[in-house]
Amino acid sequence: MARGSSAAGGRDAELDLLRQIRRRVSTGAAVALGIGDDCALLRIKDREQVAVTTDLSIDGRHFRLGWHPPEAVGHRTLARGLSDLAAMGARPLAAFVSLGLPKDLVQREGRRPAWVSRFYDGLLTLAARHKTPLAGGDLAESPAALADIVLVGAVPRGRALLRSAARAGDAIYVTGTLGGSAAGLDILSKLAKKRGGAPAAIRIPKRTSALLHAHLYPEPRLAQGQWLQRRGLASAAIDLSDGLSTDLTHICEESGLAAEVDSSAIPLGPGATLQQALHGGEDYELLFTARPHLSVPGRLAGVPVTRIGRMALARHNTPLVMLLMDGEARPLEPLGWQHFV
Amino acid sequence: MARGSSAAGGRDAELDLLRQIRRRVSTGAAVALGIGDDCALLRIKDREQVAVTTDLSIDGRHFRLGWHPPEAVGHRTLARGLSDLAAMGARPLAAFVSLGLPKDLVQREGRRPAWVSRFYDGLLTLAARHKTPLAGGDLAESPAALADIVLVGAVPRGRALLRSAARAGDAIYVTGTLGGSAAGLDILSKLAKKRGGAPAAIRIPKRTSALLHAHLYPEPRLAQGQWLQRRGLASAAIDLSDGLSTDLTHICEESGLAAEVDSSAIPLGPGATLQQALHGGEDYELLFTARPHLSVPGRLAGVPVTRIGRMALARHNTPLVMLLMDGEARPLEPLGWQHFV
Repeated sequence: MARGSSAAGGRDAELDLLRQIRRRVSTGAAVALGIGDDCALLRIKDREQVAVTTDLSIDGRHFRLGWHPPEAVGHRTLARGLSDLAAMGARPLAAFVSLGLPKDLVQREGRRPAWVSRFYDGLLTLAARHKTPLAGGDLAESPAALADIVLVGAVPRGRALLRSAARAGDAIYVTGTLGGSAAGLDILSKLAKKRGGAPAAIRIPKRTSALLHAHLYPEPRLAQGQWLQRRGLASAAIDLSDGLSTDLTHICEESGLAAEVDSSAIPLGPGATLQQALHGGEDYELLFTARPHLSVPGRLAGVPVTRIGRMALARHNTPLVMLLMDGEARPLEPLGWQHFV
Repeated sequence: MARGSSAAGGRDAELDLLRQIRRRVSTGAAVALGIGDDCALLRIKDREQVAVTTDLSIDGRHFRLGWHPPEAVGHRTLARGLSDLAAMGARPLAAFVSLGLPKDLVQREGRRPAWVSRFYDGLLTLAARHKTPLAGGDLAESPAALADIVLVGAVPRGRALLRSAARAGDAIYVTGTLGGSAAGLDILSKLAKKRGGAPAAIRIPKRTSALLHAHLYPEPRLAQGQWLQRRGLASAAIDLSDGLSTDLTHICEESGLAAEVDSSAIPLGPGATLQQALHGGEDYELLFTARPHLSVPGRLAGVPVTRIGRMALARHNTPLVMLLMDGEARPLEPLGWQHFV
């Protein structure tokens, strides 16, 4: 709201920050025009559709400044968006990030680089691995730290993987292992409590860092999603951001079907319980369905693929998802991530 | 961070809200797949480029919950994004809005609809006028109210209006009038102070509402931008979001030029001072340049167009923008909107 007034220091700090970011941004082949104009301009092939996803991450809700290293916040912010593209079988064209930050996160901490620089370290390292240029964004002062990530991708017309196209009898698969992110978050919260909850990133002991990896640095399954899309192998797909119970419910709702999951088949992540695998969320693995007679490889681009259940016809007054456990079928309620609690 | 726990009421409220929004969203011709999957899918013509812009609006910084009616916050959020497309000469394909809201803004206030419903009223009314479908977004609980708007548009390859393509000698034009938004904000702040700053939207007296209109409901100049792009008439363009002094500086910096503005030629908005017209921002008019021999119409799609100055060669150690006033040339510093103060 501060119109018509100027603080030279403020403007200089902003310009420095923008320049710094601009220098670090590599423009990729798809970016005809990047940061510095009213819009970015992206190249796309003829006969492709544009895939767009946005995800908002807020301090205290999707991450905690006192728990998560800034690099991990940057990585996780981008991973959320890339994972949505993976679930459609799309290839990334460019990312955009809008940051709202309290002033102190833009300033250096003594000899350490500012929080925001370390955030970009994490984000740009993952972006480089997936050849995703950062083509723009916005920056504003905010009482709470937050990042809104936008990913724009491309997919051949009519060939995207949808949530709504599963068929009764289809087998259900997941990539990788589940629950590792929730298990890592559990360790992180215990470390934070031990430390007394002081508002600065906690030191992570070396021996636990491997267990935390799935939570802090999840890997979006872009190669796997694009492989499934090219081969036409998956009938439906979604990424496991909210948790298996909730995300499988989404596929059921959008496809007008029910599902059965075999609990003993679910691949558990390191240190994860079955509950964390069912409801934990943030694993960013792919959940997909395929016709039962199709041969699905046991690994895709180095990541294991596991068959965990099957799609079925929905019946009136019956829960959408059933869990088979100890020879018994019980309802699996969608108890994963909620956007509003 | 609330994984693995469920409050039935919370989930129901969220689902109700998502259902409500989904019902109100009209999918346009460009939206192959809207809200309800991992990504939205947009159709684009062959030989077009994708234009993307994101803008973050935060309570206390870009709007105030206690000052701005929710409908105006929704309108202004979308107008910021549409105006960026207008400045590139792009046509809108779809909008996406990520909302972070404190819980009470999602709940009904007695008999009145929830703040968020009225926000969508304002946003969707403007969206319908510009045939821009809302194709997705995100929703999360947040300590501060905020909205990140994403606009995706299309423009013929290599034909977008850029900030960087002005040439020395080009004439400088603006659409509409300037400073009206800042003048309206001034009235709004006085009304709020009189009322004692209670944290609820102030009542706006009928006699002042016309003066507030430019601030609360600015009109993005899409038709004008697309007309200039189709005719190839403008050499460079930008939208006036930060203020004439700052936005003209952007054109100078990106084009490697200087500029002179004739203060007496600047068309003032209702109730606006010259200072508000120079630095106020948020008018969302277009600022563009054109070769001096070209004949630019005095009106574009019903909106006046005014010649206010000319581009010149930049000289070492000389201010980029000069203001001609009372027969004297003085430096015009970029004193408009700052993202960080």
